[in-house]
Amino acid sequence: MPDSSDTVLGDVMHKWAADLFKVCRSLTGPGVRESLSYLTNLLPDLTTHGVSTGTKAFDWAVPEEWTIREAYIEDESGRRLVDFNENNLHVVGYSIPTDLWMDLEELDAHLHSLPEQPDAIPYVTSYYSRRWGFCLTHKVRQLMKAGRYRAYIDSDLKPGIMNYGELIIEGDTEDEILLSTYICHPSMANNELSGPVVTTALARWLTSLESTRYTYRIIFVPETIGSVLYLSRHFQHLQKATVAGFVVTCVGDDRTYSFLPSRKGESLSDRVAEHVLKHMVGDYDRYTYLERGSDERQYCSPGIDLPICSIMRSKYGTYPEYHTSLDDLDLISPAGLEGSFRVLQTAIQVLEENYHYKAAFRCEPQLGKRGLYPTLSKKRNTDDTRLLMDVLAHADGDMDLIGLANHLGQDVTTMLPIIEKLREAKLLSRVT
Amino acid sequence: MPDSSDTVLGDVMHKWAADLFKVCRSLTGPGVRESLSYLTNLLPDLTTHGVSTGTKAFDWAVPEEWTIREAYIEDESGRRLVDFNENNLHVVGYSIPTDLWMDLEELDAHLHSLPEQPDAIPYVTSYYSRRWGFCLTHKVRQLMKAGRYRAYIDSDLKPGIMNYGELIIEGDTEDEILLSTYICHPSMANNELSGPVVTTALARWLTSLESTRYTYRIIFVPETIGSVLYLSRHFQHLQKATVAGFVVTCVGDDRTYSFLPSRKGESLSDRVAEHVLKHMVGDYDRYTYLERGSDERQYCSPGIDLPICSIMRSKYGTYPEYHTSLDDLDLISPAGLEGSFRVLQTAIQVLEENYHYKAAFRCEPQLGKRGLYPTLSKKRNTDDTRLLMDVLAHADGDMDLIGLANHLGQDVTTMLPIIEKLREAKLLSRVT
Amino acid sequence: MPDSSDTVLGDVMHKWAADLFKVCRSLTGPGVRESLSYLTNLLPDLTTHGVSTGTKAFDWAVPEEWTIREAYIEDESGRRLVDFNENNLHVVGYSIPTDLWMDLEELDAHLHSLPEQPDAIPYVTSYYSRRWGFCLTHKVRQLMKAGRYRAYIDSDLKPGIMNYGELIIEGDTEDEILLSTYICHPSMANNELSGPVVTTALARWLTSLESTRYTYRIIFVPETIGSVLYLSRHFQHLQKATVAGFVVTCVGDDRTYSFLPSRKGESLSDRVAEHVLKHMVGDYDRYTYLERGSDERQYCSPGIDLPICSIMRSKYGTYPEYHTSLDDLDLISPAGLEGSFRVLQTAIQVLEENYHYKAAFRCEPQLGKRGLYPTLSKKRNTDDTRLLMDVLAHADGDMDLIGLANHLGQDVTTMLPIIEKLREAKLLSRVT
Repeated sequence: MPDSSDTVLGDVMHKWAADLFKVCRSLTGPGVRESLSYLTNLLPDLTTHGVSTGTKAFDWAVPEEWTIREAYIEDESGRRLVDFNENNLHVVGYSIPTDLWMDLEELDAHLHSLPEQPDAIPYVTSYYSRRWGFCLTHKVRQLMKAGRYRAYIDSDLKPGIMNYGELIIEGDTEDEILLSTYICHPSMANNELSGPVVTTALARWLTSLESTRYTYRIIFVPETIGSVLYLSRHFQHLQKATVAGFVVTCVGDDRTYSFLPSRKGESLSDRVAEHVLKHMVGDYDRYTYLERGSDERQYCSPGIDLPICSIMRSKYGTYPEYHTSLDDLDLISPAGLEGSFRVLQTAIQVLEENYHYKAAFRCEPQLGKRGLYPTLSKKRNTDDTRLLMDVLAHADGDMDLIGLANHLGQDVTTMLPIIEKLREAKLLSRVT
Repeated sequence: MPDSSDTVLGDVMHKWAADLFKVCRSLTGPGVRESLSYLTNLLPDLTTHGVSTGTKAFDWAVPEEWTIREAYIEDESGRRLVDFNENNLHVVGYSIPTDLWMDLEELDAHLHSLPEQPDAIPYVTSYYSRRWGFCLTHKVRQLMKAGRYRAYIDSDLKPGIMNYGELIIEGDTEDEILLSTYICHPSMANNELSGPVVTTALARWLTSLESTRYTYRIIFVPETIGSVLYLSRHFQHLQKATVAGFVVTCVGDDRTYSFLPSRKGESLSDRVAEHVLKHMVGDYDRYTYLERGSDERQYCSPGIDLPICSIMRSKYGTYPEYHTSLDDLDLISPAGLEGSFRVLQTAIQVLEENYHYKAAFRCEPQLGKRGLYPTLSKKRNTDDTRLLMDVLAHADGDMDLIGLANHLGQDVTTMLPIIEKLREAKLLSRVT
Repeated sequence: MPDSSDTVLGDVMHKWAADLFKVCRSLTGPGVRESLSYLTNLLPDLTTHGVSTGTKAFDWAVPEEWTIREAYIEDESGRRLVDFNENNLHVVGYSIPTDLWMDLEELDAHLHSLPEQPDAIPYVTSYYSRRWGFCLTHKVRQLMKAGRYRAYIDSDLKPGIMNYGELIIEGDTEDEILLSTYICHPSMANNELSGPVVTTALARWLTSLESTRYTYRIIFVPETIGSVLYLSRHFQHLQKATVAGFVVTCVGDDRTYSFLPSRKGESLSDRVAEHVLKHMVGDYDRYTYLERGSDERQYCSPGIDLPICSIMRSKYGTYPEYHTSLDDLDLISPAGLEGSFRVLQTAIQVLEENYHYKAAFRCEPQLGKRGLYPTLSKKRNTDDTRLLMDVLAHADGDMDLIGLANHLGQDVTTMLPIIEKLREAKLLSRVT
């Protein structure tokens, strides 16, 4: 189990990502089950749920299950120009089966490439409209000559099961923190294997703790339909129980940190995220909810309104490798993954300690008799004594610890020992 | 009837102004009646009301009625140096009758001119203190030689009637929008024939509509005493019914647009005015309520507190021709009048559509099955799809359309087709 | 009695400070009583209270009473290197009695000097831990050679009395304004004889008034333990009665003005202080509550929450002479004391007039018939007429006078004659 102080945690996470990279995931199908099975080895208490095709979820229904076995484009000489076995991005997600010979001209309507990124295979899906297609680099596409080609896709699209994973770690209270990540992306790394592996590391760390204040609800779902389905089943409970939460996505590279707030902003999640990013990272990109793009679209939707935001590295849609084969294992790094883990871990630690505090006495207490104040009064107090006095001077129970830290221009992490000292001295107590 | 898309509407309004220009209006008297009679030809449902001299209105009383027939200054040779027939600004408003020969020295106390604008005849009134006087250009005044002059004013000042016009266009609801303009200024154009003619065009457009959501209350009153009198009769009803409104004044030139907020600001009127000015005009002068100067002084006064603001071109008091004979038909233009009409018309159209909208489903709806979303998922959505999704993502019924548009950085006008599309698809509904 | 227009008031206050300068004050003891006795000559109604050692006050207890008679360091030749009779800062406050010969090395642990201010004797106390010590200039300390020295302190530390002064000036209402200053500092001038002498001048001025709206509670207490004790006895009454108040400290030099807000800020005290400083001073230093350091620490503490702020000159802790012998009678000046007096006096005058005002009429009143408006309407109103109209236009009873002045960008002091004129004309009334 990764220890929070383990400097090789980044390597461990990167290895998990490498193990999972080749698996062809989609909204549904064997690749999802294989991935959840791998994660269950790491998280023995992870439960895999299955939901039948056609199950209603608000305006949606669970789609058919898609199985892909083989797919290629072959020329008349039998040479395979595009082969699913080489890269599972080569086939459009949810492609129906096909086996047809046709002219390049006709085939062309089924091909996707990126002229401005000639070495990248784009990631294309067609979940809700039946079609088939291939994705390839623009370089290869340009080499294809007029002639006959065979488009072969051995896939199934039929009633089945949509799977997702759920892990609930009971805390001292029924208040919950939600971590949500998605497992529907095939061979890409920042978006998205980084989310599942960092979430797995967080889950292992949380499981290893003797106890937690909050209950942790950690879910691995296919994006959109998975979170919509999950919400359709649990939103009333979640609305009551959820005090904070994060969509864990795009947490693998090491180019930047970024933040995307919840819809209404200023929730506990937003406040802890920005507090921790400010003090641990300093300089980070701050997006608005208008730039949303992952499952916060569901969690924060009108009528759901959960306090969910995202702490990320390079955000989906903003980096050149996004949704292409260039978003690979080289794009993410052990350091990138570990940095994200530390920031999210710290955010959780701060949430666990984020009580409202109240001073035990009216007026300043006499710190000297408790050894908390120099008995000799000279010109200046030390910074620590000053901070201790500032905490007491503002501890009226109205502000939570994050609010108090922000008001004092301090990092919660550096304040915790002082809070502890004051609680031990019975000068400060948590408001319950 | 001017059509809202009629490109010659500006010319039509300018002609109305030209027709009305020569009429000598004041707080009371035949000039007001003649003007209201002209407007009644354009607005058959306009009702002219009369209120007797002495009628109480809060701290005020309706003044005596003033009739002016002739006024001039004549020298001993019989030459008329100043003649009311040439410009009705030549006589101080509400001058009592006089017919006296006197030295220039004595006459001088009754003369008004502007040394810094030697070609301008100033506009001067003395409504509530009995006096007589003449206004003239400083050039002419300087040419007057010592000698005897005859000051002749053939006027009446006696108990009579104060008139105002009122047009109520019933809407689907009893909520009202107030348009108020004033008809007490003699031969001046931006301040003030532009207000009555643009208001008339708006009234004709509103009358031509099959139906409106709001009831429109449109009044043509003498400034100050007219609005005070009107409020003294109707303020309780207006406080209950009025959702928004505008004082229509100084809307004729084409030098600038400007905005003067209601006293408390942030009312629906202020919000729609600033939204429309921002998107239709971009750059406009924003005044504060401390720079008020027209009938918003009454509508926004303590105890009245109606949500009334002003959308103007060059504001009263800010342009050199203000309250002089230089504020003539050349100062206003068809384009200036038409631009003001379009902005006010758009503000009204936005008010009519300014509902609170609520999404039909929790979570995002499945747009693809409704043809509102590309079925093939690639890297980027179009701007229209994005805007449509942004509308749904924020439609929690809390924000009105103007608030939603401002939040999304959009123009209500460009959002309306998307709102319509979503309502047709039953994905969005008005909160009632 | 100092008259508020007396230009020599600064000299009078400076003389009081000079009279009191030599007295050796501390938390307790004869020096405090001597000082209170001097002030009672100036304020006949000042009551001196005594509280016994050991009396509980929240987390504190009244300390033993300290009497100091003599203290010196003598070398073997009988020469006194440090002598309490020359400057009472030479002995550490609350030093226990001692009479010991020792090597310089051993003595050194009991010596306090400031290497970076070699000519300054520092001010050091040890109220709550029994020790003894001497303070001296670094220059003298460096001249002390190895050898034997006698440390002699003739003091008492035994159960006794802690004294404070209290003066209550009854007003027309039971709402109170609190002035608090402290009397525990020995021979220093800005911090702190300036506070007691300016407070005394304010008390004399208030006593001289025929009547006041507010009741004034003026206390002279030892810092911290004095205000804590006072609050422990009166906080419930003070929470109900106190509408505003000031800690009067560091009001003697003439280098700057400064402001330290109450903990929550935006109280009436903060608002009047900033209004008056802005208009009387213009440029002043604005501290935050995090830079607090005097008795506002108690008055604004959680559970007390009185609206107390400080208007100061050079704030404690910010000027080089602070808490040393350099903070002497030359550091403060008659002009500095008088300027502080005027600002605090004006703040009190503004508080006395700070009513909510309501216009008598809906709509604008007719000012002309009351001689408050020119009867001849020309292009521009005078500034005074404009201000008068602005007051009426905003007098809805919601804003207090300070709020109204701030909204209009005016100084309350310049508005008062206009308020008076409008009240006389029965156009404006106070909201009660």
